[in-house]
Amino acid sequence: MVDKVPFDDDVLTADAPEEEGARPDDRIDDERHDHENRLKPEYIRSVREALEEGDNNAVYDLVEPLHAADVADLLELLDRDERAPLAAAITDQMTFEVVAELNDHVREDMMEALPPEAVALIVEQLETDDAVQLIEDLDEGDQRAILAEVEAEDRAAIESALAYPEETAGRLMNRHVVAVPEHMNVGNLIDYLRSEADLAHEFYEVFVVDERHHPVGTCALSWILTTPRNISLTDVMKRDQTLIPVDTDQEEVALMFQKYDLISAAVVDDTGRLVGQMTVDDVVHIISEEAGEDVLLLSGAGDGDINEPIREAYGSRVRWLIANLGTAVVGSAIIAFFGAAIEKLVALAVLMPIVASIGGNAGTQTMAVAVRAIATNQLTRANTWRIVGRELRVALLNGATIAVLIGIATGLLFAPQLGVVIAVAMVINIIIAGMAGVLVPVIFERLNQDPAVASSVFVTMITDSMGFLAFLGLAVASGLVSM
Amino acid sequence: MVDKVPFDDDVLTADAPEEEGARPDDRIDDERHDHENRLKPEYIRSVREALEEGDNNAVYDLVEPLHAADVADLLELLDRDERAPLAAAITDQMTFEVVAELNDHVREDMMEALPPEAVALIVEQLETDDAVQLIEDLDEGDQRAILAEVEAEDRAAIESALAYPEETAGRLMNRHVVAVPEHMNVGNLIDYLRSEADLAHEFYEVFVVDERHHPVGTCALSWILTTPRNISLTDVMKRDQTLIPVDTDQEEVALMFQKYDLISAAVVDDTGRLVGQMTVDDVVHIISEEAGEDVLLLSGAGDGDINEPIREAYGSRVRWLIANLGTAVVGSAIIAFFGAAIEKLVALAVLMPIVASIGGNAGTQTMAVAVRAIATNQLTRANTWRIVGRELRVALLNGATIAVLIGIATGLLFAPQLGVVIAVAMVINIIIAGMAGVLVPVIFERLNQDPAVASSVFVTMITDSMGFLAFLGLAVASGLVSM
Repeated sequence: MVDKVPFDDDVLTADAPEEEGARPDDRIDDERHDHENRLKPEYIRSVREALEEGDNNAVYDLVEPLHAADVADLLELLDRDERAPLAAAITDQMTFEVVAELNDHVREDMMEALPPEAVALIVEQLETDDAVQLIEDLDEGDQRAILAEVEAEDRAAIESALAYPEETAGRLMNRHVVAVPEHMNVGNLIDYLRSEADLAHEFYEVFVVDERHHPVGTCALSWILTTPRNISLTDVMKRDQTLIPVDTDQEEVALMFQKYDLISAAVVDDTGRLVGQMTVDDVVHIISEEAGEDVLLLSGAGDGDINEPIREAYGSRVRWLIANLGTAVVGSAIIAFFGAAIEKLVALAVLMPIVASIGGNAGTQTMAVAVRAIATNQLTRANTWRIVGRELRVALLNGATIAVLIGIATGLLFAPQLGVVIAVAMVINIIIAGMAGVLVPVIFERLNQDPAVASSVFVTMITDSMGFLAFLGLAVASGLVSM
Repeated sequence: MVDKVPFDDDVLTADAPEEEGARPDDRIDDERHDHENRLKPEYIRSVREALEEGDNNAVYDLVEPLHAADVADLLELLDRDERAPLAAAITDQMTFEVVAELNDHVREDMMEALPPEAVALIVEQLETDDAVQLIEDLDEGDQRAILAEVEAEDRAAIESALAYPEETAGRLMNRHVVAVPEHMNVGNLIDYLRSEADLAHEFYEVFVVDERHHPVGTCALSWILTTPRNISLTDVMKRDQTLIPVDTDQEEVALMFQKYDLISAAVVDDTGRLVGQMTVDDVVHIISEEAGEDVLLLSGAGDGDINEPIREAYGSRVRWLIANLGTAVVGSAIIAFFGAAIEKLVALAVLMPIVASIGGNAGTQTMAVAVRAIATNQLTRANTWRIVGRELRVALLNGATIAVLIGIATGLLFAPQLGVVIAVAMVINIIIAGMAGVLVPVIFERLNQDPAVASSVFVTMITDSMGFLAFLGLAVASGLVSM
């Protein structure tokens, strides 16, 4: 299953001769990285100390061996007021790669501290997509000041990107594509690539286009390299390809790359002309962003980035807490309605939070599953009712189990009848929770709202109030306590 | 910024001549896919109907135009008992690509229905890594039965993969690598690639190895294609590369690919020999799995896959609910302790859930942020205390805001003094929530536990009980109500 390599040595040989020597990896577990490839606290401390002593040469030597991505990590791990001094100490190591790898908030923060010309110099070295990322977060004024300094061709590319809405293919795509006409054969292509000076540093596919510049096929570089020179590209290329319209949302793009295992894909405008490409290395960041986002959105943590300015973090989170304050009041109103009953039997006050909170947990479980399934296109109109039925069955099993436990405990500690009441209330609330957990996100999705954003406020409100209502209501209805 | 293509047409031209004609994309918005590239319910329905009528030819024609990944989606969207009939109706379209794209649970379910020989045939067509994925979930017996049918070389590869622990590079890597000796030049390499029959269908990098088969550098294919034949590989290759030890956890691998923007990376055994490679298309699935996992783990939804058998879903979720039952009891115990006070002033019972639930929400927000930051290596020992300080400040702002709102409302609806009590209790609980939200996940991480798994049980317990304790305790301590 392994390609023979031109010397008698088989990659597969399981039992290779033991050899001493450090671990092969040149990054993990060295003096600067821990076993999880994070910069060691001791290393960070030594950089800090050198910075405090103002010993820039020491700082420079410490940072020198780092990969650009690690320099970016280092800047993020330092305190806000330590970043500028570090950048100053390592000037020529502050390459555009480092800037491209920086967390958005940290980058914005640092860029605003630099003069426009300096930022412009960085922008010109970046690929359009990275340049756009750097610029899009800055405010109008800074943007114009910087673009004014940027060389015309690059500015045109950046401005055309900024013309597309955020988080769409048009904004994110790389305009640097290798596009060749159909009449070429493998030999022509290789000669062209060797002769062409300013090609992208790395590319993974060559796009074959017709006279109207519409993509007609793609060639993976590995196909070209394994094919004789005289074969025509049209015999090598794959015609069935995934074309990404410029206005496609990044989440959609990410799902396509996952679904069709793409390395790169052509981006086309609404006339079908090739205008750029998305490559998997950009998409990888989108995927982890989109997938990680759900947990933050569901918990109302907004952007949820530890580098987000406190003001913004407060703004997004407090809005959510106020919304939950509203829903909590609904539950309290129900409790207030049964105030008389609670006065007579304080055990109700002791037990009612249990019914509500277990219901809340059951609802959150189902909701998390539903939100993920919707986000990954696994839960669609085609199977909604099957999933609802599935969650109903799970809820029945969970409800029965919890009801027995809490029912018996309550029956023994308080009164048998109260045990029955709480058991029944628990089953009811867990079933309601299960249904709300699926249906609320599904409904939001049908209304073209992001299910992750608003679902949990509603689900919690439902499980809280239904929990109190079922428990207190049954207690009164069963004649356990009068009002 | 775009490479000149050998005819006078500029990719960048923003205003291309309008042309009629359908949308260029061959998948989105066709008669089978909706705008989000999901199979349309109408399409699924027509397949269902054809299946019910037993009209296999109609089924075949309906499925024929689909991409393998879409056939897999179709199987997943259908009910469990419809899958076998569909597979039977489209036999030769049930390619190994389809099997590789199937959801683990659905695949396992379908494979168990097939005879070992049939599965063996599929296994032999799959890349080792996909074959292993297919086999690892089946039980011992089935595994042996299938492997017995598999041709020797493939079996050896699969067994050596199964020898590594699940979710490690050794288990996931593709053993199909192109490894060449240092003495080659670009020309030799291209000739070798053209002559070599059974190369991987697609590869993105060529690994240069020494006599001991240790990687000394990698060449991106684009570098090879843009370099004259007579240049030596050692002048083209990148020496500074990320090598992945076989025992590296998949989450680690995913983070490396993201951090260093890798397309593929060499996997080495503990003697430093090249034994395989990880490619980004596999990593893309790991990334979305690992990132999406957090929301499911935090909510105790276990695997959280809508295709997971009900029994398993029940098992993982009920365990969680029982744990939460335990924590809820702690809160109830505190309420019970203040039973006398509640009897005298039922307003306490009405308001106490608000204090607890808002605290719970605040805790969840911080916890979600912390868990994501830990998972992405942004929150490490180096900046823990800065983040704790940050969250403390956000908590103070949130606490003050909510306290004012609830305090005034309570003061007006009930009694001024009760307004003060609930306001203070709210501030206390939100601050405790903020601290617990960061510290609990951090502590679990230090104990080498996955912070996403157990954090929320503890955070909820803390916010619930502290909420009740602060509110009821202050009410009594302030002399508002006696016990």
